[in-house]
Amino acid sequence: MRCCIITIGNEIIQGRIVDTNSAFLARKLSILGHEIRAKISVGDSHELIAKALSTCLDTFGCDLIITTGGLGPTPDDITLEAIARALGLELTLNEEALKEIERKYREKGLEMTEARKKMALMPRGAKPIPNPVGIAPGALIETYVGGRKILIVALPGVPREMESMFSSFVEKMLRLPNRFLIEAYIDLLNARESDLAPLIKELQKRYPEFYIKSHPMGHEIEKPSILLYISTYDSDKQRGVSRCIDLLKALETKLREALPHVEVKIRTPCTSQ
Amino acid sequence: MRCCIITIGNEIIQGRIVDTNSAFLARKLSILGHEIRAKISVGDSHELIAKALSTCLDTFGCDLIITTGGLGPTPDDITLEAIARALGLELTLNEEALKEIERKYREKGLEMTEARKKMALMPRGAKPIPNPVGIAPGALIETYVGGRKILIVALPGVPREMESMFSSFVEKMLRLPNRFLIEAYIDLLNARESDLAPLIKELQKRYPEFYIKSHPMGHEIEKPSILLYISTYDSDKQRGVSRCIDLLKALETKLREALPHVEVKIRTPCTSQ
Repeated sequence: MRCCIITIGNEIIQGRIVDTNSAFLARKLSILGHEIRAKISVGDSHELIAKALSTCLDTFGCDLIITTGGLGPTPDDITLEAIARALGLELTLNEEALKEIERKYREKGLEMTEARKKMALMPRGAKPIPNPVGIAPGALIETYVGGRKILIVALPGVPREMESMFSSFVEKMLRLPNRFLIEAYIDLLNARESDLAPLIKELQKRYPEFYIKSHPMGHEIEKPSILLYISTYDSDKQRGVSRCIDLLKALETKLREALPHVEVKIRTPCTSQ
Repeated sequence: MRCCIITIGNEIIQGRIVDTNSAFLARKLSILGHEIRAKISVGDSHELIAKALSTCLDTFGCDLIITTGGLGPTPDDITLEAIARALGLELTLNEEALKEIERKYREKGLEMTEARKKMALMPRGAKPIPNPVGIAPGALIETYVGGRKILIVALPGVPREMESMFSSFVEKMLRLPNRFLIEAYIDLLNARESDLAPLIKELQKRYPEFYIKSHPMGHEIEKPSILLYISTYDSDKQRGVSRCIDLLKALETKLREALPHVEVKIRTPCTSQ
């Protein structure tokens, strides 16, 4: 699936916190074999959330959008209302969500208030996602936009709630059969990215099914060092790992020929996720 | 200025790293008094970088776009080429950038190669941004899109290079006269977000020039705790801080009346940036 991630919150857009939610989700979706087209962060604003949604749907052509943030009881928690408005869906009190929220408060002898009830307002037809860690449920919204089926998954912004809900509920829905991520990390000491570039270009031609990426870790001139990442997807874990090992051998041979001063250290050997 | 931040790199979009660059830039731009409309992350792809640019310009109406990543010597470092293509500008060898790159390699007895030269390719008219930490220079691109003047600042993806270049070169260009961010953080122990919501709503009405935001830190029912953030901009630092202190006093009075069990702890007192 073509995925977009939207993280919502003024604290993100103003740089008061580092957005770890989108990294968590992107990593999970990558391992599951999906293509992440874009991550977008916007503040708590109807206008900006609507713009982020239309960007994901129209500009990036995503079928799956995962949002985080804006599900709580305060007036600026507006994600589900903004999604409903943007998609022309009615915002209604979701009975299943309401029951669950009531149960949690009642257990501690707390009454329902307007602010607490608000967390059960969802686009009509949405399915609540249980929140085993906190209160606000997530929402699963399946709908059609221009005849195209899309899935929106709205999760809370508190990382431990979001992560737990993704792992216990969302992940299994999105698992693709027979698609495994194979990857390895290799440290190349005394290697300059500018020297490696032609070598990687050649290797990439020989192994087109692999993604090969150099990340400069030291200083290009003063203290050159590269972290090389290679990855591919395979329907057969064993075969994928073997192909990955092949590529690493070819890399070592190439390096010995062209850049013998480079020291190769396998940081993470070829592994399937 | 209306700002958008675009962070570029497959490692970001696949969640292999947490994007700290956009948080750094968003915080800096906030302190400088600018409005951040959106942060977008995309992979190393011409198509996706072009889409991110058009989203920032057309959908979010940004006048200032800061990009990070994709300035290095490898074939997938394509940010400046992608910007040039998207804006219909010619990609040319920037003589000033080339001289600086050559100087850095020559100092260590290293010759120029195609991969190294590539880092001096910039949209015509771009001004190189010196990189005091690494090699690849940044680029400042002033251009017109549909009659609107826009500024694009392209910075490298390596955080220590990006941060140093922003602080030593970009920041002073973007400073607004007489616009100071005033902010405070307050811990509210034993406070539930759902109980605070009406109180914050009231306070917000009385102090419309302030941004007041509650962040749940504990568990809404089991172990409730809130981090409250308040901020405003003022052309007079002293006055801004006084108004902030006023608001905090009003908050404490309100809390004593309505939620006397809540313990108030000032984490960061009213401060001007």
